[in-house]
Amino acid sequence: AEAANAPKNVLADQRRSLEDLLKRRFVVGQAFEIYGGVAGLFDYGPPGAAMKDALISLWRQHFILEEGLLEIECTCLTPDPVLRASGHVERFTDFMVRDTVTHECYRADKLLAEHVTARALPNETNPTRKARLEQLVHDVDTYSQTELGAALKEAGVVSDAGNQVSEPFPFNLMFATQIGPSGLIPGFLRPETAQGIFVNFRRLLDYAGGKLPFGAATIGQAFRNEIAPRSGLLRVREFTLAEIEFFVHPSREGRHHSKFGSIRDLKVPLLTKKAQETEGDDTVIMAIGDAISQGIIDNETLGYFIGRTALFLKAAGLADSRTHGPTPQDSAFRFRQHRSTEMAHYANDCWDAEIWTSYGWVECVGIADRSCFDLGRHSEKSGSELVAYERFDEPKDIEVTVFKFDRQGLGMALKKLAKPAIEFLEATSDDARKAYAAELESKGFITIRVKPEADKKKKKDDPESAEEPQEVDVQVPKQYVTIATETKRIHGQTFTPSVIEPSFGLGRILYSLLEHAYYVRGGEDEARAVLSLSPLIAPYKVALLPLSANDAFSAILGEIRRSLSAVGVSCKVDDSGSSVGRRYARSDEIGIPFAVTVDFQSIENRTATIRERDTCTQIRVPIAEIAKLCYDLSNGNVMWADARATYPEQQQSASDSVGRKE
Amino acid sequence: AEAANAPKNVLADQRRSLEDLLKRRFVVGQAFEIYGGVAGLFDYGPPGAAMKDALISLWRQHFILEEGLLEIECTCLTPDPVLRASGHVERFTDFMVRDTVTHECYRADKLLAEHVTARALPNETNPTRKARLEQLVHDVDTYSQTELGAALKEAGVVSDAGNQVSEPFPFNLMFATQIGPSGLIPGFLRPETAQGIFVNFRRLLDYAGGKLPFGAATIGQAFRNEIAPRSGLLRVREFTLAEIEFFVHPSREGRHHSKFGSIRDLKVPLLTKKAQETEGDDTVIMAIGDAISQGIIDNETLGYFIGRTALFLKAAGLADSRTHGPTPQDSAFRFRQHRSTEMAHYANDCWDAEIWTSYGWVECVGIADRSCFDLGRHSEKSGSELVAYERFDEPKDIEVTVFKFDRQGLGMALKKLAKPAIEFLEATSDDARKAYAAELESKGFITIRVKPEADKKKKKDDPESAEEPQEVDVQVPKQYVTIATETKRIHGQTFTPSVIEPSFGLGRILYSLLEHAYYVRGGEDEARAVLSLSPLIAPYKVALLPLSANDAFSAILGEIRRSLSAVGVSCKVDDSGSSVGRRYARSDEIGIPFAVTVDFQSIENRTATIRERDTCTQIRVPIAEIAKLCYDLSNGNVMWADARATYPEQQQSASDSVGRKE
Repeated sequence: AEAANAPKNVLADQRRSLEDLLKRRFVVGQAFEIYGGVAGLFDYGPPGAAMKDALISLWRQHFILEEGLLEIECTCLTPDPVLRASGHVERFTDFMVRDTVTHECYRADKLLAEHVTARALPNETNPTRKARLEQLVHDVDTYSQTELGAALKEAGVVSDAGNQVSEPFPFNLMFATQIGPSGLIPGFLRPETAQGIFVNFRRLLDYAGGKLPFGAATIGQAFRNEIAPRSGLLRVREFTLAEIEFFVHPSREGRHHSKFGSIRDLKVPLLTKKAQETEGDDTVIMAIGDAISQGIIDNETLGYFIGRTALFLKAAGLADSRTHGPTPQDSAFRFRQHRSTEMAHYANDCWDAEIWTSYGWVECVGIADRSCFDLGRHSEKSGSELVAYERFDEPKDIEVTVFKFDRQGLGMALKKLAKPAIEFLEATSDDARKAYAAELESKGFITIRVKPEADKKKKKDDPESAEEPQEVDVQVPKQYVTIATETKRIHGQTFTPSVIEPSFGLGRILYSLLEHAYYVRGGEDEARAVLSLSPLIAPYKVALLPLSANDAFSAILGEIRRSLSAVGVSCKVDDSGSSVGRRYARSDEIGIPFAVTVDFQSIENRTATIRERDTCTQIRVPIAEIAKLCYDLSNGNVMWADARATYPEQQQSASDSVGRKE
Repeated sequence: AEAANAPKNVLADQRRSLEDLLKRRFVVGQAFEIYGGVAGLFDYGPPGAAMKDALISLWRQHFILEEGLLEIECTCLTPDPVLRASGHVERFTDFMVRDTVTHECYRADKLLAEHVTARALPNETNPTRKARLEQLVHDVDTYSQTELGAALKEAGVVSDAGNQVSEPFPFNLMFATQIGPSGLIPGFLRPETAQGIFVNFRRLLDYAGGKLPFGAATIGQAFRNEIAPRSGLLRVREFTLAEIEFFVHPSREGRHHSKFGSIRDLKVPLLTKKAQETEGDDTVIMAIGDAISQGIIDNETLGYFIGRTALFLKAAGLADSRTHGPTPQDSAFRFRQHRSTEMAHYANDCWDAEIWTSYGWVECVGIADRSCFDLGRHSEKSGSELVAYERFDEPKDIEVTVFKFDRQGLGMALKKLAKPAIEFLEATSDDARKAYAAELESKGFITIRVKPEADKKKKKDDPESAEEPQEVDVQVPKQYVTIATETKRIHGQTFTPSVIEPSFGLGRILYSLLEHAYYVRGGEDEARAVLSLSPLIAPYKVALLPLSANDAFSAILGEIRRSLSAVGVSCKVDDSGSSVGRRYARSDEIGIPFAVTVDFQSIENRTATIRERDTCTQIRVPIAEIAKLCYDLSNGNVMWADARATYPEQQQSASDSVGRKE
């Protein structure tokens, strides 16, 4: 319901000019444009690729290094059985409708929301009907196929061309392909990166020394064949995900987190399930510790990652953007809890970090307690036990039910079925054995389903023609089975871990940061666009400019460049012939926070100026101190105000914040 | 011909134990192993992912930063027309044969080489026949489909099962998929990353200020549906490429390189085209400047990137591995020039950097002068001119042929064809105009092919039914056309740039580095494996160990850890309960170059030991100096021998280089 409940916002007003900037400076561009482009595919140009790389570095530092996660890299190509086990083959679908005349495809929920918001509501005067239409849009994410069909009819939805649309039907969003020359291995491009971690669980647990909790992470491309990608960079068909799977013991205690204290008092904006279901969309600001003690957030580990995510989004730059929210007091992001109808049956609790954008609130991070669903499914479907072992503090004595068989008698009675029957019963769990014991007592036999032993000789002679034997029902009579209860001393047990999954859409976060960073400031002659990006996300930390194309500057320019490189501060030299003011404007446009200019005074007294992007103020700094100062400014060790207090102010050049027209 | 001409080598002998180590420590593992695995797909575990990340960082530093390349990020999904223009749809094939009984698929050239090397040659006693078989394998890369079929027959090749194989037929190696819900956009996973740069050429040229030469680079996943991937990590279906497209003016002068002087005297091992065709595989060591002046390497830009590639491979660690070559005096890598029969018709000159591995010489980098082929093809197929503009130093006066039309007369004569005919002729090149002038003179008319003007009114009313008009022949009579020659002053001209393409298979390079880094050293009780990786490629630079699981060590451990983190030195804490010797062995196995151990003396006098992986020698260093020293050791600023000369030696603990069995 992103598009529908969006109040009018300032981000939407400036979207077109931001998009123009992103295209003009090749931050991003539609992929394959010279061939007409493909909807939902975008390329990152040099500044965009550098920003994305910076965002990935920040994420790695904030999560992988600080949480000590195990980072792995898995393939995009994924064979069918893996995505069948995960449920994607069956259920990774959106509902689609077609224009019954042109056959154009639409995503049903988006069409409903757009139609109601843009066409139906503005012309609706009846307040009851109006409220009902708003309700339809509000609830659209929760609808089943049938409910969605009914809602489309009720709202009178037609296609863009004004034609009737079909009933909604599920469309699988995975890109299919075939692996190998014979076409016998059907596969898909992964729709998320998480499965790579689950299928490697045993290796990872081993790497972690067999101990829980531990977390693994992976950063990589994922692919979704969106039905009708429209929302620019927010709904794309190929994108970068950064996903964490944090494995814990499935008990309540297992979900405690050793570092929880560090975020207990952190206040975050929460839009709870209850608020959405009963009270209207009211976001509350609440300490994470309180939300847990009040039963709003399910557990500490989930709460810990909500807190760490809030800190990450702030570090990336959303902290300074509160005025960009729907109302001035709102945060630029919030955590929205999934409603019961949205959430998978196995999930304990799910929260999306949503960022306010020109398209309304957009899900950028999902944080879900998925219990033991994923490992359980892969254990079942692959036949490999994906479990951890828990050693008890004290050994326990437990009562177990054991079968004892009269093997000879059973062999004569059941022939080829005897051995499989014994193997089947010996492999059963204690609970199942108790049930069989009761059945044996009441009926005099138990019925199980097994495969007869294969005829080994035949199979060996002609492996092609030997058919796999079919399962049959077999009755095991009481006379051949004795049941006993024995006491067994056990030192531990295996269990399927639960998992908490924070999953980050890095492209969406980057686009949201760009929307929040963009502003236009007036000059004397013209307006100038600025990307006020955090230095951590800026594509380069420093723009390095000679005052003019004079050879006298090149030695000092080279010296500063090398000193910046030595401390790892990226810089972009602009020695084009344009005026300094114009070059400042060009570096502001792609978000470079600091500009170092070499002028005639630099030659005289070995100083250069540093200009800050947003204040346009300048200081004059000895060349020997520039690299260290730029390093400290870029990493937040020194604030610009402190630097201004330390070094002499330099008057702005006449052309700054004015500049000639590009 | 990798597998066939491989002399017996030490790397092959140790491959199995290296593979065991890579699996056991989860450096890499077969993807989806719990589902039986998929051939040619591998996952990188935590140490492998960190090594690969380090290799990418080194590549970025060495090429993108030092050469000032424009890095972009493009999509894996690629629509059909792009790969049709590049020639991949038609020609990106390998020849395949099938077992005529089991239908198993083989890559024809590999099967030929394996069959001859493993089965035919060992049993062949006739020297003439033996020489002929060797020749077949030597030339296998150069064969056409027909020649390959003949060679298979001549060598008597059968399948692994001993059955006859089919004639070879081409199999396209791209993974196909469909983009969009209607299935109307056929696409592929990119088989290389280069096309993303070509289709963005105009944006990149604009970003570079319109000036040549400039280079662009991209690092990302590529996909090839290998027929029968067998060579472990060397022939995989999904892999990371790092590609550069360096655009130059197409003249000889355009291929000069401003930084050529820096590699002119660099000596590199070259296996020339001529040596392969006439003299046997003799590699010569030659300065790049000499190779160019002798006409062996075509031009400076190509030579420059060959030199930079040699320096990159050395920086990554191959410099120390000369003894791993086929003979002790050989380099671990060489540059092999493509033979005429291997090279595409449009290419000027191509060289592969091949690394010596357990599988023989393996192509890891391709460096090709592709002339203007790629931009020319995309210009032609997309209809977008991918050209640069060259401004002359002095304006030039040139003679141009111009048409002047009697528009009224032509309109009456040709009706709806008049306007398209005039537009067509006005858009022709000067050469074409001269030809038309001659035709007009000799025949009295010229024949051209144009589309009639569309009926605008009809089209507007009913856009669906308005059919696109068909092209027709039209004769333009002499009486309506005057031809004149005029002098025109031009200030510059457009041209299609040429491109030099260095393309790096990062996965292959990483695997080769592992093979060269691996060795086993004897201890008192057992042999221990070591990965002697360069600190630049090592997954972590420092292993940080408390002497034992004593709480007394944790404060100092934390202090050292933070100090390492502050200077950007990655470390892996191993506080498991194992003996120090065993923990040293574990860190040696994954190539960590330095181990810092906190012991009881650390608490007494604030020092800790640093141990070097390959010498097993230790020094004792004040805690305050450890981070800086580890930083300098990891970056090659300080050599271990110098550190040993500066700090007091620490006696090895009894368990080091011995250790208990895992």
